[in-house]
Amino acid sequence: MEHASMSLEQICAKIGDLDQASGELAKQRLERLTKPPGSLGRLETLVIQLAEITGQPLPRIFPPGIAVFAGDHGIVAEGVSAFPQEVTGQMVRNFAAGGAAINVFARQIGAKLDITDVGTAADLSEVEGVRQRKVREGTGNFAREDAMSRQEAVEAIAAGIESAARLIEEGAECIIPGEMGIGNTTSSTAIAAVITGRSTEELTGAGTGLNPDARKRKAALIQRALEARKPDPADALDIISKIGGLEIAAMTGAILAAAARRKPVLLDGFICGVAAVLAVKLASGVRGYLIAGHRSQEPGHEAVLEWLGLEPLLDLQLRLGEGSGAAVAYPLLESAVRMLAEMATFESAGISGASSPS
Amino acid sequence: MEHASMSLEQICAKIGDLDQASGELAKQRLERLTKPPGSLGRLETLVIQLAEITGQPLPRIFPPGIAVFAGDHGIVAEGVSAFPQEVTGQMVRNFAAGGAAINVFARQIGAKLDITDVGTAADLSEVEGVRQRKVREGTGNFAREDAMSRQEAVEAIAAGIESAARLIEEGAECIIPGEMGIGNTTSSTAIAAVITGRSTEELTGAGTGLNPDARKRKAALIQRALEARKPDPADALDIISKIGGLEIAAMTGAILAAAARRKPVLLDGFICGVAAVLAVKLASGVRGYLIAGHRSQEPGHEAVLEWLGLEPLLDLQLRLGEGSGAAVAYPLLESAVRMLAEMATFESAGISGASSPS
Repeated sequence: MEHASMSLEQICAKIGDLDQASGELAKQRLERLTKPPGSLGRLETLVIQLAEITGQPLPRIFPPGIAVFAGDHGIVAEGVSAFPQEVTGQMVRNFAAGGAAINVFARQIGAKLDITDVGTAADLSEVEGVRQRKVREGTGNFAREDAMSRQEAVEAIAAGIESAARLIEEGAECIIPGEMGIGNTTSSTAIAAVITGRSTEELTGAGTGLNPDARKRKAALIQRALEARKPDPADALDIISKIGGLEIAAMTGAILAAAARRKPVLLDGFICGVAAVLAVKLASGVRGYLIAGHRSQEPGHEAVLEWLGLEPLLDLQLRLGEGSGAAVAYPLLESAVRMLAEMATFESAGISGASSPS
Repeated sequence: MEHASMSLEQICAKIGDLDQASGELAKQRLERLTKPPGSLGRLETLVIQLAEITGQPLPRIFPPGIAVFAGDHGIVAEGVSAFPQEVTGQMVRNFAAGGAAINVFARQIGAKLDITDVGTAADLSEVEGVRQRKVREGTGNFAREDAMSRQEAVEAIAAGIESAARLIEEGAECIIPGEMGIGNTTSSTAIAAVITGRSTEELTGAGTGLNPDARKRKAALIQRALEARKPDPADALDIISKIGGLEIAAMTGAILAAAARRKPVLLDGFICGVAAVLAVKLASGVRGYLIAGHRSQEPGHEAVLEWLGLEPLLDLQLRLGEGSGAAVAYPLLESAVRMLAEMATFESAGISGASSPS
């Protein structure tokens, strides 16, 4: 696994430009397929992007690999989540047993699922199918202290790089990052506020199920924490170490590793979007490798999508995380790719074209 | 094939109410799955509807069957289409050879494709894999005469009933109606104007690729034709016979047959939506069996969706037809159904629930 041992700087330096020539070839082929020009809308622009990403005029994206990372958040001590902290570890066991939403969708799309404990507060060392890369047992409560050290942030990113690199070595042609971490919408909202400059009141949502009062308290808490921590908006590692999450940092690493290997990154919702923003901060070339799977119900997601310049494929009021919204969107990538590879052309099928002054 | 020989009245009478009890059981199970309540948004309401349609608390929707109907339109003599009429027959050959978009997506989703020539102007009698149910060789030009007789409309509907009934007999658990017919956005726009009462100027789009001037002429032509034909908005058969299409009528029949057998109908875009409106006019109980696959770029589709009270699953700027947008949306139904059937419950996975004052 070449990339697993590469440093963060080396990975970032390895991210190349999109392959415009392959995109152009895909575009030319699209024009010859037996359908009115442009009539497959977003599937057409999608397959051009996939050609540019992969450098293949007929891009391959199967099988996908899902890299799920789990971590806990010290900030839950402030009462920001509807669920207790132990649910993080319990859900990781659920992933390992195959019973979570992401397991179901992974089976549906033929994805391999790689699960890493990058920092839960639970002891999951005996759970089969969960890779142990625990940087620390949950982050510090960023209302009172830094979430982690800069070195720990780098280690968490490295765990993400390792997971994606392994999936790619094993054949994955598309990477879907996923997460589990009670409290991670709080960290994500804080990061989104720092990067987009919007208010925490505007960006804070219900998370896994807060009532309006609790949501308001969460927004105010994040605002106070940001004033105390003062993360530098220009420095992704400073942001992660002060207000980040271990699993968010790992997703950032997985995104960087995928882009470095010219694999499309299919993004899930808000937390994944925040990880992508951090990846773009570390290496701006990542941007072209990103595809937004869906628009989450978390209000911060819209701000993140806007910052990334992405229009999501689905808008189904999902807000589960785990990578689930991206996995559910994956068949659209398959449709796009199959359409280009398998459809007949006007010439091959002997079909008349559109009359010129149409 | 019980339904293939049933009359239109018998089919309409056989369409039953949704099964609220099965929907309630699905809902109760959803609440116990290992995810925050409601966090899978539209997938949750979708699977409840599928339970109500099928009468199964754990609904089955695989495999899907795609019923594609082809017909020609006399109105193309007025220059309303970017493509010449012979493309209808050429595309049917392309369907039979497996090279069209709908073939690609049918293979992707494991669907059986049933192709019926219900009224093309071409001779396709020798084409293997195309069922011959030609009611007439294209409709009359409804700018000058009725599109077909009332009896022909009934025959075209019967061809659709037959196709869906056959697919269901062969195992299809979900029906996707599709069409091919150069000129059929013109007929569909006329029907949409009659039923929704909106202006043809508002409803007329670019079809397969008209420029703005041609689009304007098309809207005016449809307006004049409606004034000449005067279809009765309350009488679906009058609408079909005066301004309809043979393939549109067949899709209406397929939709009725699916609903009569408690199979979900996954709708494609504008033309399919118009066929669904006609089916609802014939039997209002059909409405609950409909799922809108996507929002088409044709402006008339929005009006049709509003009339049907449907919110589409996808919005990807598709405007191809053939059933393609529905086929591309089908994996979302699969995600919804698998989620309900395969996810662990909080009890089974030993996971703590949300704290009460969340």
